[in-house]
Amino acid sequence: MSYEPTWSLNPQLAKDTVEVGDLLLARVLLMNDANFPWLLLVPRRPNVSEVFDLDEIEQGQLVSEITLLARVLKDVTTCDKLNIATIGNVVPQLHVHIVARRRDDAAWPQPVWGTLPARPYEPAERDLLIAAIRQEVAFG
Amino acid sequence: MSYEPTWSLNPQLAKDTVEVGDLLLARVLLMNDANFPWLLLVPRRPNVSEVFDLDEIEQGQLVSEITLLARVLKDVTTCDKLNIATIGNVVPQLHVHIVARRRDDAAWPQPVWGTLPARPYEPAERDLLIAAIRQEVAFG
Repeated sequence: MSYEPTWSLNPQLAKDTVEVGDLLLARVLLMNDANFPWLLLVPRRPNVSEVFDLDEIEQGQLVSEITLLARVLKDVTTCDKLNIATIGNVVPQLHVHIVARRRDDAAWPQPVWGTLPARPYEPAERDLLIAAIRQEVAFG
Repeated sequence: MSYEPTWSLNPQLAKDTVEVGDLLLARVLLMNDANFPWLLLVPRRPNVSEVFDLDEIEQGQLVSEITLLARVLKDVTTCDKLNIATIGNVVPQLHVHIVARRRDDAAWPQPVWGTLPARPYEPAERDLLIAAIRQEVAFG
């Protein structure tokens, strides 16, 4: 039995991000927006829109993966605050935002959603960030 | 030993909300904003700002309480989508937003944070919503 019977990444999420790696449950993506170090976790389960659409074991696993990536993003960026959210008003596939915030970033203290147009990474800057994250996380 | 050695609710959160009840870990509050049915969960633990400041058992408990209240808010409001987030750029005490969203609400599809000034409830409307939530949740 496959863990991903019919799952595929939502095309809008694919367009906005770069792949970082897979954990047991979630695909980890980096938003292609150099304004903020910003990860997405997308559980590889079909037809899941709300957290409670996952079963209880998957919910626990998702929280473990969120906490792991939140710690790693804080370590790597030495940010002031993490913003963690699942919104999904536009893209219904369940995805969790983990955003590293600084008091001097371009949107502080506002949330990042809908405030600024994305500023695509320079490839070198993006690859450095992804490498730093991969060094701390055992991706499958 | 008390569960709340030195915890107290942040004054800004107290000012913006009405108390709904206590679960094992979190105090449940209703934002006094009739634009959106909007709950806050505040773990009654001192000096906690990020989810990973809670221990693993508390993290699991918080997720159970988030999921419970999210389901109840969806039942009670028959909303289209839930938005769940911990931001905390302004108020550092860890608090989780659970917001019931409708495709015809005043901010859709934008997130609710920083979009509209709060519109205080009529007391009767507020009390009806709180009563409906209390009917589905076993508060301590």
